[in-house]
Amino acid sequence: MSAEPKLDATSSERPIGVFDSGIGGLTVVAALRRTLPGEKILYLGDTARVPYGGKSPETVTRYSKEISDLLVAEGAKMIVAACNTASALAVPSLALSYPVPLVGVIEPGAAAAVLATRNGKIGVIATRATINSDAYGKAIRALDPAVSVTAVACPLLVPLIEEGLFDDEITRTMLRRYLDPLLRAGIDTLVLGCTHYPLLKSVIARLCGKRVTLVDSAENCALAVRALLAPSGCLSQAGHPRLDVLLTDSSEGFLRIAERSLDLTIDSLGIRELGK
Amino acid sequence: MSAEPKLDATSSERPIGVFDSGIGGLTVVAALRRTLPGEKILYLGDTARVPYGGKSPETVTRYSKEISDLLVAEGAKMIVAACNTASALAVPSLALSYPVPLVGVIEPGAAAAVLATRNGKIGVIATRATINSDAYGKAIRALDPAVSVTAVACPLLVPLIEEGLFDDEITRTMLRRYLDPLLRAGIDTLVLGCTHYPLLKSVIARLCGKRVTLVDSAENCALAVRALLAPSGCLSQAGHPRLDVLLTDSSEGFLRIAERSLDLTIDSLGIRELGK
Repeated sequence: MSAEPKLDATSSERPIGVFDSGIGGLTVVAALRRTLPGEKILYLGDTARVPYGGKSPETVTRYSKEISDLLVAEGAKMIVAACNTASALAVPSLALSYPVPLVGVIEPGAAAAVLATRNGKIGVIATRATINSDAYGKAIRALDPAVSVTAVACPLLVPLIEEGLFDDEITRTMLRRYLDPLLRAGIDTLVLGCTHYPLLKSVIARLCGKRVTLVDSAENCALAVRALLAPSGCLSQAGHPRLDVLLTDSSEGFLRIAERSLDLTIDSLGIRELGK
Repeated sequence: MSAEPKLDATSSERPIGVFDSGIGGLTVVAALRRTLPGEKILYLGDTARVPYGGKSPETVTRYSKEISDLLVAEGAKMIVAACNTASALAVPSLALSYPVPLVGVIEPGAAAAVLATRNGKIGVIATRATINSDAYGKAIRALDPAVSVTAVACPLLVPLIEEGLFDDEITRTMLRRYLDPLLRAGIDTLVLGCTHYPLLKSVIARLCGKRVTLVDSAENCALAVRALLAPSGCLSQAGHPRLDVLLTDSSEGFLRIAERSLDLTIDSLGIRELGK
């Protein structure tokens, strides 16, 4: 963003560090796996302090820095904040002075939404903290000031998803409430502004109808990572992919749900305490 | 529990320390206020790491110890774990060697339930961590081995309550699912095994019908605190009540909802970082 983070071809075989407040960021891992199938990925889920979506910018920034420092100490060649709340609240300030590139999910999602809209009306659903930061609104208006953005905080979707209630009457009822002001605003593009939400993609698509294009920040973040690594020769050449997962608390329930629904294979799972 | 914690009349004017993962423990504060109107109360809500209900025993114990140490450093004459998850997972081990008495909500709730039941069938609703610990089952069977306990984890109730959806169709639908196996088991007594749940008491009462007595651990915990302090002359004589609140993150939204619905006056509010 300003200072030049170190990124050169000697780092190509080191892992991509990815983190999230919990397990939702595995949707970004799944997208990275599809886009960059040869890469090693080291994922940290901060399950001891999940969720971030209702917490303050200061606290989310402190947590994000602790985690990024750990991933760099473990050899990560770059960091992906696979968490919209961390991307909105912490990445802009942290990335300025970080020793390796630090990429969030907001700008890629905003860029894809601006490309997708035909009527200039974009909707955003996300956690309360992400919506309060107006990170998507700012990023979208920076690309096209003429676009109008309607944003709705959906604080209950993460708990519903973590309970595995993907296609459940309660989830549909809640989604109808959240989506109603967006559909009334006439949006033709909807940003899924939380890494958990792709797990509800089919239900959201059904409720929105064919007129609305869904923008999944996971896919676009993976493309942004490739665009960053490829020109500097930092993509893995060896092609020995791995997925190593660290959690800050031993909460494995949703990990198994995510592994199944995202068709990911986890090569190792460890617990690492933070904030001591 | 075993070693004699220090409690003597010289500590009478010091505050009662109360903690919870978040704001739900204010239901215990409200009960303490009614039972012991002259006491100073120092409340800590760990909003930077809320919720505890899905986290591991090790992590919940580490958090509970950090918080209790802080409350003792601030002069607390005793500690109330106003959080069922912390009471279930951390209090039994911590209380053994703690310098001041440490009281949880499980035993008082269990005792009240055993007194209330007429048919020997008690239901418990709580977070997943509390249910997995079987803390209520053990405490109830220790008092009366003939009682049968049916326990249901209700992981979505805390998020619904924190959104203020007290008497909402979504909350009622979710509650019907959670309560169904309890009502089919023929319970006549239901323990509200999470300090958030008293905020849903009227809805739960309506869904359960008059046959079922609701046991609110907040009320019974307040009575247990009085029973502990009174014999050693440790109740405040001065009668200058105060409620000082510390949060670990600046998340005030639900605090205002709780203040209103519980009719509490907060004299001071501060932020205190933990886990650094």
